[in-house]
Amino acid sequence: MSFDRLQEKINIMKNPTVVGLDPALDNIPPDLLARHLDEKGETLQAAADAVLEYNMGLIDALWDIVPAVKPQAAFHEILGPEGVMTLKKTCEYAKSKGMYVICDAKRNDIGTTAVAYSAAFLGTVKIGETLLRPFDVDALTINAYLGSDGVIPFIEEAVKNDKAVFTLVKTSNPSSGDFQDKLIEGEERLYTTVADLMDNISKETIGKYGFSRVGAVVGATYPQEMVFLRARLKNTFFLVPGYGAQGGGVADVAHAFNDKGQGAIVNSSRGIIAAWKESGEDYTIAARKAALAMKEELASCI
Amino acid sequence: MSFDRLQEKINIMKNPTVVGLDPALDNIPPDLLARHLDEKGETLQAAADAVLEYNMGLIDALWDIVPAVKPQAAFHEILGPEGVMTLKKTCEYAKSKGMYVICDAKRNDIGTTAVAYSAAFLGTVKIGETLLRPFDVDALTINAYLGSDGVIPFIEEAVKNDKAVFTLVKTSNPSSGDFQDKLIEGEERLYTTVADLMDNISKETIGKYGFSRVGAVVGATYPQEMVFLRARLKNTFFLVPGYGAQGGGVADVAHAFNDKGQGAIVNSSRGIIAAWKESGEDYTIAARKAALAMKEELASCI
Repeated sequence: MSFDRLQEKINIMKNPTVVGLDPALDNIPPDLLARHLDEKGETLQAAADAVLEYNMGLIDALWDIVPAVKPQAAFHEILGPEGVMTLKKTCEYAKSKGMYVICDAKRNDIGTTAVAYSAAFLGTVKIGETLLRPFDVDALTINAYLGSDGVIPFIEEAVKNDKAVFTLVKTSNPSSGDFQDKLIEGEERLYTTVADLMDNISKETIGKYGFSRVGAVVGATYPQEMVFLRARLKNTFFLVPGYGAQGGGVADVAHAFNDKGQGAIVNSSRGIIAAWKESGEDYTIAARKAALAMKEELASCI
Repeated sequence: MSFDRLQEKINIMKNPTVVGLDPALDNIPPDLLARHLDEKGETLQAAADAVLEYNMGLIDALWDIVPAVKPQAAFHEILGPEGVMTLKKTCEYAKSKGMYVICDAKRNDIGTTAVAYSAAFLGTVKIGETLLRPFDVDALTINAYLGSDGVIPFIEEAVKNDKAVFTLVKTSNPSSGDFQDKLIEGEERLYTTVADLMDNISKETIGKYGFSRVGAVVGATYPQEMVFLRARLKNTFFLVPGYGAQGGGVADVAHAFNDKGQGAIVNSSRGIIAAWKESGEDYTIAARKAALAMKEELASCI
């Protein structure tokens, strides 16, 4: 099962890290970017090619020590369809290296439209008699504001193709409390209501490590909420943003893991992919060093 | 201002309709699709080419009687990057015909990632010294679950480029009440809390017709909530899904308009783009007839 594979990779590598591929152009070493622009002109295609080289370089530097990558759709869509092709090729390349691929696209819709998104990222589309995979990833982040019928199509597709999703529950940003922290019917916070419904509609999908196919995004920047949610959601795998640049530390993310040291993966993006800015080294060497340092930091969690 | 232009188009055409471009492959006439697959094989590119021809045919049939189109990202992403290129070309073609283009992508994220999405759809990206538009649309649908700092980057980009957004408030689907209808702090429904915050953070962006750059998605299938929200949100332009196939009628959508008959646009997708299935006519002729019929139906609203 999808999260079983992820947990096993984490166990084998002794590393609960996912590297966020956020290839904003200013995260790319200037000489790498310039080489593509000089050769092909200042076009979306040239920038998308530079992003692909950058992403592949990071994957080459990390695949044997980091179990998962999380390509961010936005930093590819900003380069138009050419950037979206780079997103697809990046996902394929990471998979070919054995990495678990979480596409961070926060998709959401209803009915046949939710079915279309889930087929796009987690399933297949039938063209004539041919089944094709538009984007082949292991898991997709989704947003549940539309309610259960906006989520169930993703769960069904995940079951069919052995994939998974992570629903936004308590996010890491400063204003996540605007809605997520509101008291619902005078009892629970909205994020708890969301988490409970997700837990409820995914009970039939629990794998051998005890996790359902519907994980939760829970930010490292809110440790109290993390403690509360970990205790409440025994069957939910946590994707934890907010470590490092956003302010979350090891003591904070430690709460994301269950008493077996399982059930969570911690994201770092800039701290790894832009580590070259601090050290002045080649970006792949700097990324590998930063990833090894993060593995050390998180060793006590697992 | 973006919604001023939309309101003026509606006034001139006497038609508050937006046609949802949901090019699921089974909405495309089989002979049109087969022609592309026969010629190019059963590939994502062939299907994406068929979708582009279909979308352009609909735009050609509708541009002089319908003010706006709403391409749905999901039905393009299901054809991979090739489908996303068709989405871009469809948006460009609709704009070249003078239509107001609402990309229905329900994007959402925080910080620099939200900035990247807003640049992708509403702004520009700088490649070297060259400014390029990744996708050039007039308005984008967004999801506000992440709170104000997930929305403000979109507003800022909209102001900079004279664009607009529609935030999901009360959606048309059966389970929209799972979260949206919950009573917050014992007082208001979540959708009201979302709507109020959106109203609050967009007050500086109001144009000459009295609408801010942050519209709201309010489903036709919940007329009571529509009445409540219209009375509350004087400065909010409504995008109204749920008309026709989902069950909303004229009496329901009438509540979306203010006392001047302004401030709302009603979506129809399958009812227009797949009207050929009912009538057996050429899809462009059937779409135009269905659009003219819908214009008649909505005449009393404006």
